[in-house]
Amino acid sequence: MVTAAQPQPPTPERFFNAINAYQQTEAMRAAVELDIFTALAEGNTSAGAIAKRCHAAERGVRVQCDFLAIHGFITKSGTTYALAPDAALFLDRHSPAYVGGAIEFLLTNRLREGHARLTDAVRQGGCALGEGTLERENPDWVKFAEAMVPLMRMPAEIMAAELRKGGEAEKVLDIAAGHGIFGICAAMQNPKAHIYAADWKNVLEVAKKNAQSMGVADRYHLLPGSAFETDFGSGYDLALITNFLHHFDPPTCTAFMRRVHAALKPGGRAAIAELVPNADRVTPPTAAAFSMMMLATTPSGDAYTFAELERISKAAGFARVELAQPEIGLDRLVIAYK
Amino acid sequence: MVTAAQPQPPTPERFFNAINAYQQTEAMRAAVELDIFTALAEGNTSAGAIAKRCHAAERGVRVQCDFLAIHGFITKSGTTYALAPDAALFLDRHSPAYVGGAIEFLLTNRLREGHARLTDAVRQGGCALGEGTLERENPDWVKFAEAMVPLMRMPAEIMAAELRKGGEAEKVLDIAAGHGIFGICAAMQNPKAHIYAADWKNVLEVAKKNAQSMGVADRYHLLPGSAFETDFGSGYDLALITNFLHHFDPPTCTAFMRRVHAALKPGGRAAIAELVPNADRVTPPTAAAFSMMMLATTPSGDAYTFAELERISKAAGFARVELAQPEIGLDRLVIAYK
Repeated sequence: MVTAAQPQPPTPERFFNAINAYQQTEAMRAAVELDIFTALAEGNTSAGAIAKRCHAAERGVRVQCDFLAIHGFITKSGTTYALAPDAALFLDRHSPAYVGGAIEFLLTNRLREGHARLTDAVRQGGCALGEGTLERENPDWVKFAEAMVPLMRMPAEIMAAELRKGGEAEKVLDIAAGHGIFGICAAMQNPKAHIYAADWKNVLEVAKKNAQSMGVADRYHLLPGSAFETDFGSGYDLALITNFLHHFDPPTCTAFMRRVHAALKPGGRAAIAELVPNADRVTPPTAAAFSMMMLATTPSGDAYTFAELERISKAAGFARVELAQPEIGLDRLVIAYK
Repeated sequence: MVTAAQPQPPTPERFFNAINAYQQTEAMRAAVELDIFTALAEGNTSAGAIAKRCHAAERGVRVQCDFLAIHGFITKSGTTYALAPDAALFLDRHSPAYVGGAIEFLLTNRLREGHARLTDAVRQGGCALGEGTLERENPDWVKFAEAMVPLMRMPAEIMAAELRKGGEAEKVLDIAAGHGIFGICAAMQNPKAHIYAADWKNVLEVAKKNAQSMGVADRYHLLPGSAFETDFGSGYDLALITNFLHHFDPPTCTAFMRRVHAALKPGGRAAIAELVPNADRVTPPTAAAFSMMMLATTPSGDAYTFAELERISKAAGFARVELAQPEIGLDRLVIAYK
């Protein structure tokens, strides 16, 4: 509404919008639950037609669609709605890149409650709910593993291709494998590679299923248990450490990276994919804001800058650490060399 | 981060930001509860100093302040934080325009729960919690009345001044008076005016207290009860109907406006202050998005366009309806003439 070029008198509007921001969460959840984006993709363009398709009230759909239009997910012309490009690709259930299922993981009670107790979390400097998401065999990670496959396929392929440039891998450790897609894509781009996937036992069931359906089950091995306790074995060319370090404080990350360092063969690489804020910690916004998620939901996790990841890796014995060029979805790829 | 001029490939980032938008709500609530903005105004500019002042952990404050910087409420230079102009005026507890207290009203359980059941609300076309906020003597309106005084003072003065241009009022009806500030400001700008304030009995206690402290108690009268049932009396020059009509459907609004019409003397004016979206219902964003608040928390309320308010008023017998120029805070002022 207001362009940056026009200085405006101070307004409480920004404050009210922040306080009411939870409406965006609920509206997006409701839109996914009601399948409004899919209804639009199927050619229902009026509130009445969408309401019929989604078994909802026309009045409710009109308000819901207007709200989604205000926030840029759909467009409105007269009384005709249409999907914006982001929503067409990611929120239509028929799209192979559909990510609507992620609400199952992103809106668990545990995450919501961690934030509901944010005042306490700021006071004590960490999650007000004890171990938060780090509890053993936390079933939310199964939801995560199941929901994130369509979203992670493309980033995992980009990451595997980038790592392949540094040499073919024969033995790959996939830490906190989750859905398994990062390791599976490595297997597909390294035809001789055997993948050893570490995660909680309940989560590895999802990875195993995905390895089967993607045709690499004969080269896929499971290492169930805590990534801090499981015997990884040794002789790895490559370790994939994707969206894992942010759950822990730097000393714990360093101790963990020492275990990875020990498991790699000489010249082996640890590939860290993380939301990496710039040194200012306030840009880029999505990566920088991820610190808040970690404050609210883990005892001492954080979003680490490249300098911090480099320090952690070097303290664990790695010789050299570099920030790779391609973006891995919202993540950056940091490669540590033994 | 991304300017409108650079077309970008589709990204799920907008979806994730919407799903996680509740973090903004919780972060703002926590910042107000911890008084972080006041600490900044008092000259504490590092995470350590703010943490000490707010009895919080430095790590928690650092993450919290970075998050507030990402969302524009504070600025960051190196490791030094400062208040952005909006926050300095509205979120420093020492500021006369402090609005932080509004979280008490804006984040009641009832509002949060109405939105938590938004999928059901869209299905049925109205609040999934029965009467929602419209319950008789709802104590949340007392919180509202108490919290909104500092924010409403300036808009109420602007509205009273604008209405004064149309002639001096001697008898003023203030519907759903709440904090009473709209009627009180009318009393201050119309020295002969007697104000008759209608609202729930528990809420009128707040209005009465404010009328006393602002020196107009001798011209201030209470009309406790439902605005649909209370006998307003007659002979009013002016009726103030501020942020009231949006709670109801158009037929109910029309029936109510007939009661107002009957209470006004010939030539009298009904002054309606509302969040008024444009005819497209998606601009301006804050007014347009208010429809969602009404869908989630009332049986059949809405944010009405000027054309709808005009139709409602004319159906109730008003001869002429106009949109006044000045903005009344986030509201627009619509004047209906008997």
